[in-house]
Amino acid sequence: MTVRVGVLGVGNIGQDHIRRLSRVLCGASVVALSDIDSARASTVAGGVTGARVFDTGQELIRADDVEAVLVASWGPTHADFVLAAIEMGKSVFCEKPLAPTIAACLHIVDAEVAYGRRLVQVGFMRRYDDGYRAMKTAITSGALGTPLLIHCAHRNASVPPNVTSDMLITDSAIHEIDLVRWLLDEEIVAARVLKPRRSGRVGELQDPQLVILETVTGVVVDVEVFVNCGYGYDIRCEIVGESASVSLDDPSGVILRRDGQRAGRVPGDWRERFARAYDAELQAWLDSVAASTVTGPSAWDGYAATAVADACLTALESGERAAVQLAARPALYG
Amino acid sequence: MTVRVGVLGVGNIGQDHIRRLSRVLCGASVVALSDIDSARASTVAGGVTGARVFDTGQELIRADDVEAVLVASWGPTHADFVLAAIEMGKSVFCEKPLAPTIAACLHIVDAEVAYGRRLVQVGFMRRYDDGYRAMKTAITSGALGTPLLIHCAHRNASVPPNVTSDMLITDSAIHEIDLVRWLLDEEIVAARVLKPRRSGRVGELQDPQLVILETVTGVVVDVEVFVNCGYGYDIRCEIVGESASVSLDDPSGVILRRDGQRAGRVPGDWRERFARAYDAELQAWLDSVAASTVTGPSAWDGYAATAVADACLTALESGERAAVQLAARPALYG
Amino acid sequence: MTVRVGVLGVGNIGQDHIRRLSRVLCGASVVALSDIDSARASTVAGGVTGARVFDTGQELIRADDVEAVLVASWGPTHADFVLAAIEMGKSVFCEKPLAPTIAACLHIVDAEVAYGRRLVQVGFMRRYDDGYRAMKTAITSGALGTPLLIHCAHRNASVPPNVTSDMLITDSAIHEIDLVRWLLDEEIVAARVLKPRRSGRVGELQDPQLVILETVTGVVVDVEVFVNCGYGYDIRCEIVGESASVSLDDPSGVILRRDGQRAGRVPGDWRERFARAYDAELQAWLDSVAASTVTGPSAWDGYAATAVADACLTALESGERAAVQLAARPALYG
Amino acid sequence: MTVRVGVLGVGNIGQDHIRRLSRVLCGASVVALSDIDSARASTVAGGVTGARVFDTGQELIRADDVEAVLVASWGPTHADFVLAAIEMGKSVFCEKPLAPTIAACLHIVDAEVAYGRRLVQVGFMRRYDDGYRAMKTAITSGALGTPLLIHCAHRNASVPPNVTSDMLITDSAIHEIDLVRWLLDEEIVAARVLKPRRSGRVGELQDPQLVILETVTGVVVDVEVFVNCGYGYDIRCEIVGESASVSLDDPSGVILRRDGQRAGRVPGDWRERFARAYDAELQAWLDSVAASTVTGPSAWDGYAATAVADACLTALESGERAAVQLAARPALYG
Repeated sequence: MTVRVGVLGVGNIGQDHIRRLSRVLCGASVVALSDIDSARASTVAGGVTGARVFDTGQELIRADDVEAVLVASWGPTHADFVLAAIEMGKSVFCEKPLAPTIAACLHIVDAEVAYGRRLVQVGFMRRYDDGYRAMKTAITSGALGTPLLIHCAHRNASVPPNVTSDMLITDSAIHEIDLVRWLLDEEIVAARVLKPRRSGRVGELQDPQLVILETVTGVVVDVEVFVNCGYGYDIRCEIVGESASVSLDDPSGVILRRDGQRAGRVPGDWRERFARAYDAELQAWLDSVAASTVTGPSAWDGYAATAVADACLTALESGERAAVQLAARPALYG
Repeated sequence: MTVRVGVLGVGNIGQDHIRRLSRVLCGASVVALSDIDSARASTVAGGVTGARVFDTGQELIRADDVEAVLVASWGPTHADFVLAAIEMGKSVFCEKPLAPTIAACLHIVDAEVAYGRRLVQVGFMRRYDDGYRAMKTAITSGALGTPLLIHCAHRNASVPPNVTSDMLITDSAIHEIDLVRWLLDEEIVAARVLKPRRSGRVGELQDPQLVILETVTGVVVDVEVFVNCGYGYDIRCEIVGESASVSLDDPSGVILRRDGQRAGRVPGDWRERFARAYDAELQAWLDSVAASTVTGPSAWDGYAATAVADACLTALESGERAAVQLAARPALYG
Repeated sequence: MTVRVGVLGVGNIGQDHIRRLSRVLCGASVVALSDIDSARASTVAGGVTGARVFDTGQELIRADDVEAVLVASWGPTHADFVLAAIEMGKSVFCEKPLAPTIAACLHIVDAEVAYGRRLVQVGFMRRYDDGYRAMKTAITSGALGTPLLIHCAHRNASVPPNVTSDMLITDSAIHEIDLVRWLLDEEIVAARVLKPRRSGRVGELQDPQLVILETVTGVVVDVEVFVNCGYGYDIRCEIVGESASVSLDDPSGVILRRDGQRAGRVPGDWRERFARAYDAELQAWLDSVAASTVTGPSAWDGYAATAVADACLTALESGERAAVQLAARPALYG
Repeated sequence: MTVRVGVLGVGNIGQDHIRRLSRVLCGASVVALSDIDSARASTVAGGVTGARVFDTGQELIRADDVEAVLVASWGPTHADFVLAAIEMGKSVFCEKPLAPTIAACLHIVDAEVAYGRRLVQVGFMRRYDDGYRAMKTAITSGALGTPLLIHCAHRNASVPPNVTSDMLITDSAIHEIDLVRWLLDEEIVAARVLKPRRSGRVGELQDPQLVILETVTGVVVDVEVFVNCGYGYDIRCEIVGESASVSLDDPSGVILRRDGQRAGRVPGDWRERFARAYDAELQAWLDSVAASTVTGPSAWDGYAATAVADACLTALESGERAAVQLAARPALYG
């Protein structure tokens, strides 16, 4: 069975998903696409056999031959597209964030609850990384004992100069926020953001930041976010339990001994580091759409991540601990 | 574009390839299958939408709607199937070995040369492993200087009791034989097989063995083959060049600290270790079939591997160095 | 040249230092010892050729043939012994803490300043660990760029049941407090202590703790202290600079592949982990005594560590950020 | 107790041992030294308080105040000095080789047997390396099952141009020859030497070489010797047993993440790599001299290593397998 997908937003991320759907994964066909930049939409469509260009996302979502929708447009546009898809009863994969505001996220949650069945998957691809999955297994198998602490680092070699201090939370730490919730299967209740000495290479940007989260059972999580670390894309995570600890290993593939060093490669960026997680994420979505049972990161997960990120922004500004206030969790989300 | 594949042999390996073609990779459809055990063929066909069962492989190969053939039957049957596919001008993916005898391999090479274009890809999946590919890049980039030595180990946790001493060469070391040729881009000219103390757990089986190969430029390669090592599936490779060395890293994904140990997982078997290489191998084949240009391991590679393995068997029996005699390489194989 | 050392306190640590001075290091002779438990003093003296037992530490310190004093008695007794040694103008090695209170530490600092030359070395042995020394070199060489963050973990397999929550600061984190000051060559100005979910195995003990320090230039340091981690003695440290990061490697010596795992050993305790650092520390002291120029961790370092630990205790109790108030640094300490 | 040591030969190695005896280890005093270059002897003696210079080694060995002798002179002179020490009933530490010829080694063995007690320790310092000791423990504990194979590599960054092909055996592989005998506690019975493609950087030198040894129980050992590998001093060893394998870990101390790499340091030379093994070796010798029971590598070990090296040289020249012929082992050597 082939899922006929319509893609909203064909910038870098959208194009990368189109490549996956067209040339890597099993069971998809890109039949429609749309972009705010219609020239770009036409150019991209030229390389995708059988894909029609729609003037607006709303038209694409309503098109009969579009079975499922992939939203990869600008963040503030996500909510309207996702709501439209729900209205049409179509499965929708939405890149993170589900929506930039708590209110918009809740609106989606309410709509999906009203619809009565899960239609939305949010693009938290790290849940599909083999390493993180093995970490979760280490927890659920009981190998660690009760988790007590999590240490994370999230480093990019560099980011464009227009990145703001808030974006270290909303674009970077958001991944760890989701992972912590998923790994521990519990909610985050408070956040602090410490501001270390700033790198002298990045102007006024508060980079790095040390985000500290607390979960409902008291697990403390520290997340270093450093988006101009200079040397590569380096993702670390360790969960410390009562009797054992589990950490992501450093992926390198090969070891080169040369010039007095024994060296492995640090990934250059997230595309390289999480290439297989992106593939697995989208294949899981396709399979779940074909089976009419969406199972990946939910609208609730998207809402909760935005709510925690919001508390982090409050904490970043105030310098104080900020509590996370979550709505009651609808039964649809287990 | 979708390649309509017919699968010959639906035992474990054949079924695994069917799973890949049907549920993992892009651009394939399994339209036909055949097996010496017709009941098994019917059972497997029941799980593959649109797949017809053929009584014989020859009929399947000749069927109009079969565009490309995947041979996963018993080794001694490979040659006839591959020859029939060449006769029909159809692309054929053949699991290793291309054929168990040098004569049969040469027959295939001759037929493909007569046909005038490459149609055959042999199932040496390790060439598609990220680690080995990075090692090859280390050579071709000049980072190592001229290669001088290669050290390999090929260990299985255990093998069934019917495995014979010859099979450590023909089923196991055959992979390293192919890799060495591919990594160095040169032929192997001689082989020795040393017989270490045998494991006390495996009866009369000569396990482990130490295979030593020499290439035309004098690179010396040692390959430990140990198919009942007890602890896991462990594949090692290091290339030592004039100024640097490159090694496969140990893949583990996560590190567990527990009970006084800091431990990573050793893969359980080749399916786990080379899961992605198998996927990449077959996707590359599909893409090349769609593009009408087969580029993977060739019939010549299949022939050369069998010729080197044959010399290893001579060396295993004689205890002496055995020379490898290769036919002249046709221009088709570059 | 041989330094004639008198040892005060011959419990486990004192005996271990006597073993080093008598059987491992170069240039020492233990000529005197004393202990609050005179029977223990006699027993230990029986195994040390030429060592006299003194009834009191003060007598030992004044004895003519005692050139240098090693204080390994109970913490609250340190200050009086160190002050007596300074009064006699004798070099003194004092196990950490220099003294449990800020006032007592300052008293020692004042006495040493009044004497006019450094006589005191405090037992912060980690400064002599090869790994930490290489980290310091990475900073001073400029390889990291300006340091911005430090991540530490300090884990013991288990501790006796009489250990209190305060002791995670005063006995454990005290090492990281000293290291941070030494690595960065700057003072710590504030501390927080977060209280993660407590291990269910340790009663009311607040274990683990997450200590967060800030330095005068704004470097943020997080130190996980977990003294009942269950699996071994595990010490981690990473310094993140503007352009690179340096971490302690995991020492294991050998790798055992067995039962599906690839495992190195985690040290059992600090004696194993820092065996060579203890040797190097004491050899450096002996060499400096012989050269009449004490260069190891100073009385000022002992004072500053106690002052920071004191702020940590305040923070542990209050749950708030506690500032560190340091006296003016005398010129004697550079 | 202090051992009064006389040192024969004060070139680089002799001076390094003098440094250890004078400034690092416990319980030694260098009272005498001698060198074929008398000016050098005088210069070195100037830095060693209390050391007399002797015109000849024989005079030094006979001097009343010399209790024990350390031989670090040119290899061909070793035998006469060791025999003189045995004649005087004095303990003697002899740098490897014990003697360059089998006959000279056997002469020493005979003399020591005639004396009736062990006096000789040969300088195979790697037996004192923590990693190799842990490997031996892995064998004797039964963790590996019966050993079947050993893989070694012995690489130097570079060697002086006057090094000859034979010296890769007699100066380099000699260490692995001794280790294999010690680790397995059995003799080596045959040797082969394969000649890989030579590095283009070293003229006519046969570098690298692949030495293959067989032990009496059939364990097969491969040793890559590559003394101009370019990148550092890299020592590897893996023992493969029936159910597990144990390997030396790569020592690096710290990990530097920089410029897209995650790198540890490769030691620069043997002094750095085996610094602690040299210390432990000589301390063990001092302790055993003080206890009148030499226990380190014996004259028999020195003889056996020379005998195996001799077979390797035969194999290097002939290209064939060469058997090792050992004399009967005297009861003195267990």
